[in-house]
Amino acid sequence: MQTLVIISHPTIEDSNAQQFLRESTPAEGVTRHHLEAAYPDGKIDVEYEQHLLLQYDRILFQFPFYWYSSPALLKHWQDLVLTEGFAYGKNGNRLSGKEFGLILSTGIHESEYRAGGREGYTISELTRPYQAMAAKCGLLYLPAFVISKFDYRDDREKKRLLVAYQQYLTKENDGSLRTAEDWFKGQLRTVGKAGLSDVDQRLVDQLVGVLDENRDHLDDLLWSLEQMGEN
Amino acid sequence: MQTLVIISHPTIEDSNAQQFLRESTPAEGVTRHHLEAAYPDGKIDVEYEQHLLLQYDRILFQFPFYWYSSPALLKHWQDLVLTEGFAYGKNGNRLSGKEFGLILSTGIHESEYRAGGREGYTISELTRPYQAMAAKCGLLYLPAFVISKFDYRDDREKKRLLVAYQQYLTKENDGSLRTAEDWFKGQLRTVGKAGLSDVDQRLVDQLVGVLDENRDHLDDLLWSLEQMGEN
Repeated sequence: MQTLVIISHPTIEDSNAQQFLRESTPAEGVTRHHLEAAYPDGKIDVEYEQHLLLQYDRILFQFPFYWYSSPALLKHWQDLVLTEGFAYGKNGNRLSGKEFGLILSTGIHESEYRAGGREGYTISELTRPYQAMAAKCGLLYLPAFVISKFDYRDDREKKRLLVAYQQYLTKENDGSLRTAEDWFKGQLRTVGKAGLSDVDQRLVDQLVGVLDENRDHLDDLLWSLEQMGEN
Repeated sequence: MQTLVIISHPTIEDSNAQQFLRESTPAEGVTRHHLEAAYPDGKIDVEYEQHLLLQYDRILFQFPFYWYSSPALLKHWQDLVLTEGFAYGKNGNRLSGKEFGLILSTGIHESEYRAGGREGYTISELTRPYQAMAAKCGLLYLPAFVISKFDYRDDREKKRLLVAYQQYLTKENDGSLRTAEDWFKGQLRTVGKAGLSDVDQRLVDQLVGVLDENRDHLDDLLWSLEQMGEN
């Protein structure tokens, strides 16, 4: 799984949320591409961008939810890069089958995005233009990853956010428990390599062992259930 | 009624629809403001724009519906101009009570914007971000004015479009027949001034007379109905 995170933020260095996401990005399998840094004059290299998109299985747009949409440069990117013949249309649908998702940061609590809330509409409603774009390009639309009021989160919540973000970037999107376990085991093994003490390394190995054992029990149970179903 | 049409189109001179709308714009009561022409370097004068907005009763965004939204420069304008303290928030809601609407041109027939159609979502769904913006700024949201497949329209359809567009720009939005009549009479009187032949001028006067006469009949009928209601 190779993931491209296309980031649009005009003042990224002032955003704690964006700094946190940068530091939380896994070293392997993920490429960050910050448009305002890549194109400070706003002149987008369309050929390069199209070539880039083809290298990845999962394409994510990451941006602050300004006026219920992206900053201008990402919209400019969409209009220039996602052309007929490349992204959609009879003569080309080169992105078809890839995964697509939004990573949104908002200054307002997610629960305000609903009828009667301060924002009046759900984030699913407000992001219809991206859903329509994904549908037109044959992209599989993932549930959006929303980070609201980042600056008010405590350390424990930030740790949870980190894991959830890494999963959003790299975990297979089949919703199965086994995939989640495999993803955690992969992450734990990477942690192991990162120079832990022997004690910590043994703890990590034990945790992987527990996950494997649980999986064996679950597999036995599933097998028994299937047998019962057949008889 | 003073109307400001904020236009965003990166290649406006190549668009027949936009040329038609320009030529259809009434000479009085309407100001056109083409962002790409005003700010070729993309550097928006925020103070000027905010000052401008305050002069008008009706604010319209006119743009081609690229990727189910506006071109980038209008989004940039929104992010810079519609600030907290000016457009929304406790310390300022200076646009509150004004009318707001969208004038969208699309290359795809409007009927394709629905579940099962080529575009999958209605234009009302896809323009939720603008509805949420209007709600946050206290703007009264008008039904969008959609021009689809302009280049395929015949002269008769274009004439109808012209009248509908002029109404969208300048007619009071109370849905009453009397307002529509008054609007037509105002337009006809303007036509009269524009140097018609005597014969044409007499025809216009007759038409205004017919409208006035119909109105008298309707008023009589309404008065009779009210009397019947009271007895």
